[in-house]
Amino acid sequence: MAETKSPIVDIHTHVYPPSYIALLKSRSSIPYIRSFPPSSSLRLVILPAEDTESTSRGRPVGSEYYDIKKKIEFMDTHSIDISVISLANPWLDWVPADEAAKAAEEINDEVNEECGKFPGRLFAFATLPLSGGKDVIVKEIARLKQLKYMRGIILGTTGLGKGLDDPELLPIFQALQDAKLPIFLHPHYGLPSSVWGERANDYGHVLPLALGFPLETTIAVTRMILSGVFETVPDLQMILAHSGGTLPFLAGRIESCIEHDAHLKSEGKLGKGRKTVWDVLKKNIYLDAVVYSEVGLKAAIQASGEDRVMFGTDHPFFPPLEEEDGKWASVETNYEAIKGALGGGSKEERAALGGNAVRVLNLNSK
Amino acid sequence: MAETKSPIVDIHTHVYPPSYIALLKSRSSIPYIRSFPPSSSLRLVILPAEDTESTSRGRPVGSEYYDIKKKIEFMDTHSIDISVISLANPWLDWVPADEAAKAAEEINDEVNEECGKFPGRLFAFATLPLSGGKDVIVKEIARLKQLKYMRGIILGTTGLGKGLDDPELLPIFQALQDAKLPIFLHPHYGLPSSVWGERANDYGHVLPLALGFPLETTIAVTRMILSGVFETVPDLQMILAHSGGTLPFLAGRIESCIEHDAHLKSEGKLGKGRKTVWDVLKKNIYLDAVVYSEVGLKAAIQASGEDRVMFGTDHPFFPPLEEEDGKWASVETNYEAIKGALGGGSKEERAALGGNAVRVLNLNSK
Repeated sequence: MAETKSPIVDIHTHVYPPSYIALLKSRSSIPYIRSFPPSSSLRLVILPAEDTESTSRGRPVGSEYYDIKKKIEFMDTHSIDISVISLANPWLDWVPADEAAKAAEEINDEVNEECGKFPGRLFAFATLPLSGGKDVIVKEIARLKQLKYMRGIILGTTGLGKGLDDPELLPIFQALQDAKLPIFLHPHYGLPSSVWGERANDYGHVLPLALGFPLETTIAVTRMILSGVFETVPDLQMILAHSGGTLPFLAGRIESCIEHDAHLKSEGKLGKGRKTVWDVLKKNIYLDAVVYSEVGLKAAIQASGEDRVMFGTDHPFFPPLEEEDGKWASVETNYEAIKGALGGGSKEERAALGGNAVRVLNLNSK
Repeated sequence: MAETKSPIVDIHTHVYPPSYIALLKSRSSIPYIRSFPPSSSLRLVILPAEDTESTSRGRPVGSEYYDIKKKIEFMDTHSIDISVISLANPWLDWVPADEAAKAAEEINDEVNEECGKFPGRLFAFATLPLSGGKDVIVKEIARLKQLKYMRGIILGTTGLGKGLDDPELLPIFQALQDAKLPIFLHPHYGLPSSVWGERANDYGHVLPLALGFPLETTIAVTRMILSGVFETVPDLQMILAHSGGTLPFLAGRIESCIEHDAHLKSEGKLGKGRKTVWDVLKKNIYLDAVVYSEVGLKAAIQASGEDRVMFGTDHPFFPPLEEEDGKWASVETNYEAIKGALGGGSKEERAALGGNAVRVLNLNSK
């Protein structure tokens, strides 16, 4: 392990606590967990694109999904001191409205308890009871402050069903700002399958995972920016999964399109007080460093700042295809990208590996 | 003008030659040109998202769209020595099959003639008669070699209707490789409108233009890579609009998803001989520098190489909102990005501004 003052922190790492696994096993449409005979091993199917009769149907779901000890083992193998765990997609999006409050409470309590089993090594992002409606959500946000290890919330892109530019979300964003709980924005729904073409199944999960996920995130946060969320809730803090999807690369084009839009101008939306995409990137947004290349990570750092990027692994997803005891290539790639972009042993590298997360998420207080 | 040895070349600049304007005026569904009373000024409507009753319905279409002298004036204002002009989207995608050959011949001949009016200052990318079928297309490709100023072809993402990973396109890609005609890949269709949400019209054209266009390009070229186009036609040359959409930023994630895909592995598609996304970026792909930020341009340069990026303007699109005689902000932003990324006055800056285009597109021979 690294010395205490410079821990390595994984802010993008998922869990399916036992109560969530039980929920998924009880279901027959996505998201669900079941075996597909003749095999008896359990598989998790969470994306429409992978719910097909093929070798790409779902993915194996082993104990690394629900046994918190496996998380600690993974952390030890990869020199990770602290993990900020979050429920994996699709969270509680699909829970009936009248069950949402209870489901969120149970899962948040359970995750908080699991953090408590390894004090100082585990913190968490909580899950909101989105289908329960505004009052239920705001109530759960207030309750989270009593859960010792909660340091923010994980959120998908659908919000209350109309996306994150829905004005109905503003009181929720306000409550999160007031509670100083950052949003970890994470994709799940990708893009409509028509965009992948007739041959999509030939390519396994690559198109929805490699493109659908980051493009979904980019669209969601751009809609937030255009709708004025960051002017209305000016201190809202967001951590964007996968280094912002593609936001760092497209920020210039988005700004140029805004500045050249006759409609926005005629509506008086180009005046003083508008936060540019760059303003939001440097004031409201943090980016994980889960982008698998130095090229992407450098763009993320230049867009948002070297004090605003944070190491992550996406564990337990992207395991090695060959069963191995050693380190995961998906993790090493992101370690290498940080080292390449910021210089091995540099202050900036240590900040990206953990210092930024400790500061932003207040991980020194247990 | 810059000295002869170091010209400034605009490789992303569009024209609507008079014959194409006439075609658009004859139509009543997109793409079309008409006036919307009470205004008598002509407006061009090319995107479904902009075909609505609002101030964002289409865009003004003035003589800069069809008068080649206006192109030269624009070039002079912005110190551009050479332009490689291309028909703007949606090209001839919508032409009935039996009219495709004639339409392409007329437009390519007309564009070639316009280049001849300003020898040495104008070259062009040709338009293919896509709806005419494979034989018609290959025949037009052969004919292009006789047109003095043609240096490649512009292509959208639909191909013969099934996208660019359609095996039926391989003979066409082969013909382009054999004719040494690079493909200038350009988006038009964006993404299904559902992804922009209920409030999309509030944001003018921003979402489909700023995100839909580059995401479409990214998906199209990734599908080509996954389908094996670049192994089958190994010397195919592509120039990607808007610095590759988002390909430079996402290349690492795409590679990681490929290497971790159980389906691709079980199909034997991860073996030797596979070109990685990085291989394709450095061997088959050139990127224009139309990305409106130093952040994006640096990623493009690092992904593809400083000898593979090429200045562009997207003229006549993105004019200043206020009528001005001076320089366009959209152009200056891209000039500044090149200067910032490569250093003002450097050899690399001159290459990006024109040297790379002269070499790759053979612009010294008139």
